[in-house]
Amino acid sequence: SRPPVLNTEVLSMSFEERARVSKTSMGRRLFQVMVAKQTNLCVSADVTKASELLRIADQVGPYICVLKTHIDILEDFTVDTWRELQRLANKHNFLLFEDRKYADIGNTVQMQFQQGIYRTSQNVDIVNAHMVPGPGIIDGLKAGLVGHDVGLLLLAEMSSDGSLATGSYTDATVKAAEANCDFVMGFIAQRGLSKHPGMITMTPGVKLAPPGSARKDQLGQQYNTPEGVVARGSDVIIVGRGIITAKEGPAAECLKYREAGWKAYLKRVRSSKL
Amino acid sequence: SRPPVLNTEVLSMSFEERARVSKTSMGRRLFQVMVAKQTNLCVSADVTKASELLRIADQVGPYICVLKTHIDILEDFTVDTWRELQRLANKHNFLLFEDRKYADIGNTVQMQFQQGIYRTSQNVDIVNAHMVPGPGIIDGLKAGLVGHDVGLLLLAEMSSDGSLATGSYTDATVKAAEANCDFVMGFIAQRGLSKHPGMITMTPGVKLAPPGSARKDQLGQQYNTPEGVVARGSDVIIVGRGIITAKEGPAAECLKYREAGWKAYLKRVRSSKL
Repeated sequence: SRPPVLNTEVLSMSFEERARVSKTSMGRRLFQVMVAKQTNLCVSADVTKASELLRIADQVGPYICVLKTHIDILEDFTVDTWRELQRLANKHNFLLFEDRKYADIGNTVQMQFQQGIYRTSQNVDIVNAHMVPGPGIIDGLKAGLVGHDVGLLLLAEMSSDGSLATGSYTDATVKAAEANCDFVMGFIAQRGLSKHPGMITMTPGVKLAPPGSARKDQLGQQYNTPEGVVARGSDVIIVGRGIITAKEGPAAECLKYREAGWKAYLKRVRSSKL
Repeated sequence: SRPPVLNTEVLSMSFEERARVSKTSMGRRLFQVMVAKQTNLCVSADVTKASELLRIADQVGPYICVLKTHIDILEDFTVDTWRELQRLANKHNFLLFEDRKYADIGNTVQMQFQQGIYRTSQNVDIVNAHMVPGPGIIDGLKAGLVGHDVGLLLLAEMSSDGSLATGSYTDATVKAAEANCDFVMGFIAQRGLSKHPGMITMTPGVKLAPPGSARKDQLGQQYNTPEGVVARGSDVIIVGRGIITAKEGPAAECLKYREAGWKAYLKRVRSSKL
């Protein structure tokens, strides 16, 4: 397996500096949002009712840089759901990331991205894709852009047990991203993988101080701490159930994750400059 | 790369014989439909209007064993779309295969499969999934079954250029399928990959050789002909644009593919018995 990139050039750079060398406008926007709000926290709100999604988005909005959605699990989705999410994204200054994990050939993903009920390419800021179909998937998604600016994240690694996104699979994904750096703004991965400072790494499965007994859920998700993943080169921590099911409510838990994630980022920049 | 399985035991078996050893009820049903209708043709109808999808389904219905859909590209989907597709599937005796290519962790695919606007697990006969997230995806989809019987196909190979589903990725997918043969009914692949005669291989990107062209090796490499893929162990040929955009209409073109696919199957069984 590929060793972590301990490239002090990237790790020591602030998000302000990296925004200046970003090759995508959406990557630049995300760096700017993080700096403005001092947060590298992305919240994933996997609920099945639009009203609940919107309520959570409004509660966590002030503390996050990105809201991650699975729009296709909402049982009562309408076009108004997008309108309301966009209103909240404007109100709180966060980006909308539809975690669709496109994974088909170019011609098909173009239609899935652009058309259908969701018209995702016209409604979100960020989407992601698997590289298993080969580079045609990037071309297909590019062809599905219709004016609205969207940044693409490639899934280079996954946090689930027995993932096949390792070794040469991960390497091929990083290579494809770097070859399409006008559209690919970064990665879903467990650590920094690219030497390009403009590329942003977002890491799911992040959890504060997990009790030893509960490190895995029943279906194979593994957890990492904010400090651990940021030290290994991740830029944005993605937190789901840990926040939306918190006893004291999502906002209070958000504050803890936001602080832990931002501290870890400041510490990384500081210590990598030595 | 893994060599083709030239397992004469599987290749020489008729679909009737394989139905008897299938470990999934949906695999058994598909074998029975193929035998009853003498067709191993699956048509993929990638259109964006429900009315057009339903028109094509009714036209090609008599000649196919499976209709493959991308329900999420329909701009006017309603629950009635499923109802109408199911009515046509009953009328013409074919199975509904939603080509969703699930590719997320178990907890997420469970929600995507079971919930949302599409409620796919309650409306189709077959779905498929990538193994990139690891075996938790199979458990998640299993957990999303709610009474209605659905068979799962795993994507072991893809027909697109530069696909990463090769070598050890393909091997791990075959292993996962064989370890879950109560739910996994087969593969999307370019050739036969399993020694289990109950497993069904479906192959996309199949095209009849242009009329009048000589059957040379060069051509066999350029086109995945029905004869070529079936000889290599594929059971069901998937044809999309070649049929739905045909000049003489989908039904006439369907007949050609059905005949070529079925002839290739009979020839394989006969010649493998020698």
